[in-house]
Amino acid sequence: MTVAPATLHQGQAAVRPALQDAVARLDDSTRAVVSYHLGWCDVDGHPIESAGGKSLRPSLAILSAEAAGGTQEAGIPGAVAVELVHNFSLLHDDLMDRDVQRRHRATVWSVWGSSTAILAGDALLSLAHEVLLESNSPHAPQAGVMLASATRELIRGQVQDLAFESAALVSLTGCIDMAAGKTGALMSASAAIGAVLVGAGSQVVEALSTFGAQLGVAFQLVDDLLGIWGDPGTTGKPVFSDLASRKKTLPVTYAMEQRGAESAELRAWMSRTEPPSEAELPHVATLVDRAGGRQWAIEETARRTRLAEDAICSVHTVERARRELIELGRFLVSREA
Amino acid sequence: MTVAPATLHQGQAAVRPALQDAVARLDDSTRAVVSYHLGWCDVDGHPIESAGGKSLRPSLAILSAEAAGGTQEAGIPGAVAVELVHNFSLLHDDLMDRDVQRRHRATVWSVWGSSTAILAGDALLSLAHEVLLESNSPHAPQAGVMLASATRELIRGQVQDLAFESAALVSLTGCIDMAAGKTGALMSASAAIGAVLVGAGSQVVEALSTFGAQLGVAFQLVDDLLGIWGDPGTTGKPVFSDLASRKKTLPVTYAMEQRGAESAELRAWMSRTEPPSEAELPHVATLVDRAGGRQWAIEETARRTRLAEDAICSVHTVERARRELIELGRFLVSREA
Repeated sequence: MTVAPATLHQGQAAVRPALQDAVARLDDSTRAVVSYHLGWCDVDGHPIESAGGKSLRPSLAILSAEAAGGTQEAGIPGAVAVELVHNFSLLHDDLMDRDVQRRHRATVWSVWGSSTAILAGDALLSLAHEVLLESNSPHAPQAGVMLASATRELIRGQVQDLAFESAALVSLTGCIDMAAGKTGALMSASAAIGAVLVGAGSQVVEALSTFGAQLGVAFQLVDDLLGIWGDPGTTGKPVFSDLASRKKTLPVTYAMEQRGAESAELRAWMSRTEPPSEAELPHVATLVDRAGGRQWAIEETARRTRLAEDAICSVHTVERARRELIELGRFLVSREA
Repeated sequence: MTVAPATLHQGQAAVRPALQDAVARLDDSTRAVVSYHLGWCDVDGHPIESAGGKSLRPSLAILSAEAAGGTQEAGIPGAVAVELVHNFSLLHDDLMDRDVQRRHRATVWSVWGSSTAILAGDALLSLAHEVLLESNSPHAPQAGVMLASATRELIRGQVQDLAFESAALVSLTGCIDMAAGKTGALMSASAAIGAVLVGAGSQVVEALSTFGAQLGVAFQLVDDLLGIWGDPGTTGKPVFSDLASRKKTLPVTYAMEQRGAESAELRAWMSRTEPPSEAELPHVATLVDRAGGRQWAIEETARRTRLAEDAICSVHTVERARRELIELGRFLVSREA
């Protein structure tokens, strides 16, 4: 198993106090719900030891401040803001998808109901802007616009995703566009917001944005690969979970667009509406594989990772931070869970 | 019937192009849903002539810029932002309350489903910050913090409101605190955000905030009075609508806290859970009245309106704008729908 780079742990440790300060501003009920969601306490409010999320976005944010010649600390308001926006989207997505579990824990809506999940998400989205604008950076407004426009893209991606669920056919182009919105946009903002806060020039900001955007799509490709071929013992999800829900993921969408018998059989299977039996799923996974979906997704992940690295290597950034960004990116696309 | 002051029409006309520009940034699906919600088109997207909402908050925002010595135009980004936040909260509230109608039109969630209403609301909250931060005011970050903290208060109020639904007893203090959050906070920000954008001093900003906050609670008191004693022909709501849902509104909560037989009978009736018959409602309205709830709400509305006016008359503001703010406030508390 791939070991998470130290950057992620350091990122989490650096950002956590500021994240806690931000959450402490919320009203008592919302704060309790959010503290549970973030893995800081159990349903009854008792503190728990938990790894929490990956702290990926905050780590990108503080590294981006350093990459642009600032201190990691200067990136913290941006790191907190992107983590809050990420968690706003998880709270609302879990509700919309009616997912009852996230990271082996009951989701907020499944414990406290829909209204609480809606309000907790709303509170985090608003809090993200509050924290960012209270930073003493003269570039906070620019960072806020970046965050808001990433949120708009994220919502566009989620709207597309919902539309895809009921669409008969989804094009690969549409599916990539959706991933770029739903996953790429906030990752892009995360990888550049620290640089914006320390006043980086537009070339550096753009390069870091591209790094994050490409990495975001690569991240989604890996997610989709793991959703079909991941080891349930490692991912914590049932085997072939994305196939069981006939989800139009990137490898599946690619495979459906190809010529040949496997692709045709896959298209026919995907168009059915009854819940599939578990016994069919290994065969369907083989269809996606034989139609080239798996290989394409692996190669596309590598290609996007290269594009991400090329982007930050094309401008002048601080070497230590750049190396860590690259290491972080490589970890993300080689992860097994 | 009270005629709306010209200020409201002018406010709507001044803000509408900027509001349309903002909404035009949204993805196609969300834009269509939001345009419907704002009364610009029907469910199929055909443009319609409609008065839309009251444009109360945008009017306060542009008048606040003028009151602080700026142009009304300088307040427009703030006006658009508060109107977007207001509509974000309506979209989510209608869903949480399962209200199928607003202003005689089907609500967004009832037409397009819960997920669409959640995402459309999310999009407007984020867009509000984007618009505000893109204004060229050097004070935009301060305005953004004001907006975010008002949103936090608004959410706190909504969380309280939901808790009250299932609470056996709600104190008048708690009920006023809820109204101050749910209605007062955004009204307060609306009445000051334009002043912030034009760089007003803290005394003027505070006075305008107080004006809006007091007016917000007065506005809620009038809403609650109309929810019991309003003329259904004017309000568009069924007669005694708030009693039919055993809603713990301000006049009811006041009446429940008094001594005497009427108050005791009202408390007993409010504690029942079965849907009341229509025939009981006139008697319950009489109980609230006899226990003093109606008179108290009328006097409290007048008292809060006076406090609002005292606040803006205690600092130096531009006379024309101050007069219009006062006129607007008086209209709001004397309205019949």
